[in-house]
Amino acid sequence: MLQVKDCQALLLSFPSLGRTENVTLVNSLGRVLARDIVADIDQPPFNKSAMDGYACRLEDLPGPLKVSGEIAAGAYMDLKLEANHCYRIFTGAPVPKGADCVFMQEDSLLNQDGRMLFTQKESKVNICLQGEDMRTGDVAIKSGTMIQPQHMAIMAAFGMTHPLVAAKPKVAIICSGSELIEPEEKPVEGLIRNSNAYQLISQMNMLGANADYLGIITDNKEKLSETIFANIEKYNLIVVTGGASVGDYDFMPSVLSDLGAVVHFSALNIQPGKPVLLATLQDTHILGLSGNPVSSYLQFHLVAKPLLFRLMNCSSPSFRIIKTILEEPIKRKKNNRQLYVPVKFTDNGFAKPLLFNGSGHITALENFDGFAILEPGVNEVTKEQVVETLLL
Amino acid sequence: MLQVKDCQALLLSFPSLGRTENVTLVNSLGRVLARDIVADIDQPPFNKSAMDGYACRLEDLPGPLKVSGEIAAGAYMDLKLEANHCYRIFTGAPVPKGADCVFMQEDSLLNQDGRMLFTQKESKVNICLQGEDMRTGDVAIKSGTMIQPQHMAIMAAFGMTHPLVAAKPKVAIICSGSELIEPEEKPVEGLIRNSNAYQLISQMNMLGANADYLGIITDNKEKLSETIFANIEKYNLIVVTGGASVGDYDFMPSVLSDLGAVVHFSALNIQPGKPVLLATLQDTHILGLSGNPVSSYLQFHLVAKPLLFRLMNCSSPSFRIIKTILEEPIKRKKNNRQLYVPVKFTDNGFAKPLLFNGSGHITALENFDGFAILEPGVNEVTKEQVVETLLL
Repeated sequence: MLQVKDCQALLLSFPSLGRTENVTLVNSLGRVLARDIVADIDQPPFNKSAMDGYACRLEDLPGPLKVSGEIAAGAYMDLKLEANHCYRIFTGAPVPKGADCVFMQEDSLLNQDGRMLFTQKESKVNICLQGEDMRTGDVAIKSGTMIQPQHMAIMAAFGMTHPLVAAKPKVAIICSGSELIEPEEKPVEGLIRNSNAYQLISQMNMLGANADYLGIITDNKEKLSETIFANIEKYNLIVVTGGASVGDYDFMPSVLSDLGAVVHFSALNIQPGKPVLLATLQDTHILGLSGNPVSSYLQFHLVAKPLLFRLMNCSSPSFRIIKTILEEPIKRKKNNRQLYVPVKFTDNGFAKPLLFNGSGHITALENFDGFAILEPGVNEVTKEQVVETLLL
Repeated sequence: MLQVKDCQALLLSFPSLGRTENVTLVNSLGRVLARDIVADIDQPPFNKSAMDGYACRLEDLPGPLKVSGEIAAGAYMDLKLEANHCYRIFTGAPVPKGADCVFMQEDSLLNQDGRMLFTQKESKVNICLQGEDMRTGDVAIKSGTMIQPQHMAIMAAFGMTHPLVAAKPKVAIICSGSELIEPEEKPVEGLIRNSNAYQLISQMNMLGANADYLGIITDNKEKLSETIFANIEKYNLIVVTGGASVGDYDFMPSVLSDLGAVVHFSALNIQPGKPVLLATLQDTHILGLSGNPVSSYLQFHLVAKPLLFRLMNCSSPSFRIIKTILEEPIKRKKNNRQLYVPVKFTDNGFAKPLLFNGSGHITALENFDGFAILEPGVNEVTKEQVVETLLL
């Protein structure tokens, strides 16, 4: 039974797909950069006034200073400041050569002779210096970053209108289980609606993968084997829910073994979500998730997402585990597995454990923010103690 | 100057748009539910075996028990358990009437007479009871929830294939500033590329709003006024970047006043991002954001996002502020504003402050996770102290 951290290390050892494509800036959100974004200009590109005020030399303060003229944003006039002079200047405008300070309009007084006085003892510089944020040629965004809104702004600032990104992995989703029907049907006794397909399709789409849903397969070993084998060449990743455990109707282990797939692991030391299989056959990964919806949800975040990130050569963290503070205690009897407890952040910023019946209790996640984690060996985390939380 | 919490209260007092539409389940991700999702069946819908094992009566243990037959998942046979009998049963299968326990296969022993023995002292029940997670008629997802992957699973489980959601607010984005050029151009001295439009378009799209970019307007009061007025009837929200402060070229305050708009506030007590204006004219909201990219990014999260959530009648939190633990101290001299410092979570789960030059330093957000918040009056948060962090 693998530990989550060993699973992460294993996934990082897999090769990425290596396919890339250019997309327009507006379509690049959520995709993975495949080449560094390099600054094509300094940032700021010139000495820029941070204020409305008067550009001058610090040594000439408090004046009086003769006003040489006015510089608005968007203007550029190759101006040079003379001693004991100043320019009226506005936010965002280029500071004239020789000026090393912009004092604020609020701190100025017009003398009777038309010259300007600085009325305070000291002024901040109030100039954003050329290149203080970034120099031409610096890496602004590293290859491997999953593009978020702030990266759109950075790419725009450096003129990157068609970034190179990783191609979308092709993913197939298969749901196995004789008890499953599709959501549009009403279940008779003994049957349940398939909730995993829609959850997983949306998760995959959010990550910039292309997911095809191939439907439900009853508990039939041959059918399952045929369906997987028939799709090996079409997809980079085939996800099968259900049948991943060790029971008589859990066909995934024997199907993968019969197909000659390399099985990397068949269980994770987590609760819920222990039964999860990962195998590779002809460069295609096959991931067997639990049929229970909370288990498959958690397994998606701990295994499928890091795997997709790896396939896209994405170096952004695929999940965030941070130290939070617990509002109510969490206790348990058996402590051999790493326990994941759904929590909600309160208005005061504490992590509050939610009522949770176990791996099938998907409705417990209606209004939640993540999972608090109890490590193996830990039976209790008390109120207001620090607990690591997987953010979702 | 408004405090962020007063701004939140103000936004909550606005009416929502009230328009709704039905979408398919797969297209509902990221949209806002406009009607409760009600359980149309119990969850689980029947007493379901959580294990492969033997369904029996606890009182008959440890047996020996006569095996009456076998029940696989997906089967339903209206079976009743007799005393001192058991059924071979598999995970997900319906438990026969009269059974109140499923003991695990691993804890069973076949007697010579063909009867089954339970080999342990005590067994867990191992049955997911009908309705233990949710009863028919219960609210499974509240109206106003922004739909996430777990909600897809819940809606599928309850047969909701065409949820009713809030219509997308129509948003226009205008960028003002004579110094601005579009990203595809190379700036000569004094000009900078417009980075706000792409950032804001992507933010809006991620929230399920329809954003149109109306282009750059130079610092010309009449042009700005005309453009806003001409679009009042087409949009629910017009966002203008730049010109929101109090300088000579900050035309937003006077434009809004001349148009007769009701100005709700013209500054927030935050750093960076103080200059931000919100007004309403003929049911359309006009939001003036800073031209500085980090300011507009933060203002989006603190003002635009809660406003859009309100317009969609969304009750999910529009931002999450949680208690985290600081890896390095944060200090400041002036303490009058609420300070937002970009942080990154370390591998150990601490919030680590990033090097940050101020409101124009968008490249500081290349690899960040949120903003640590210092309240007004606070000059310092020390290492390993608790700090509230706005998650992004």
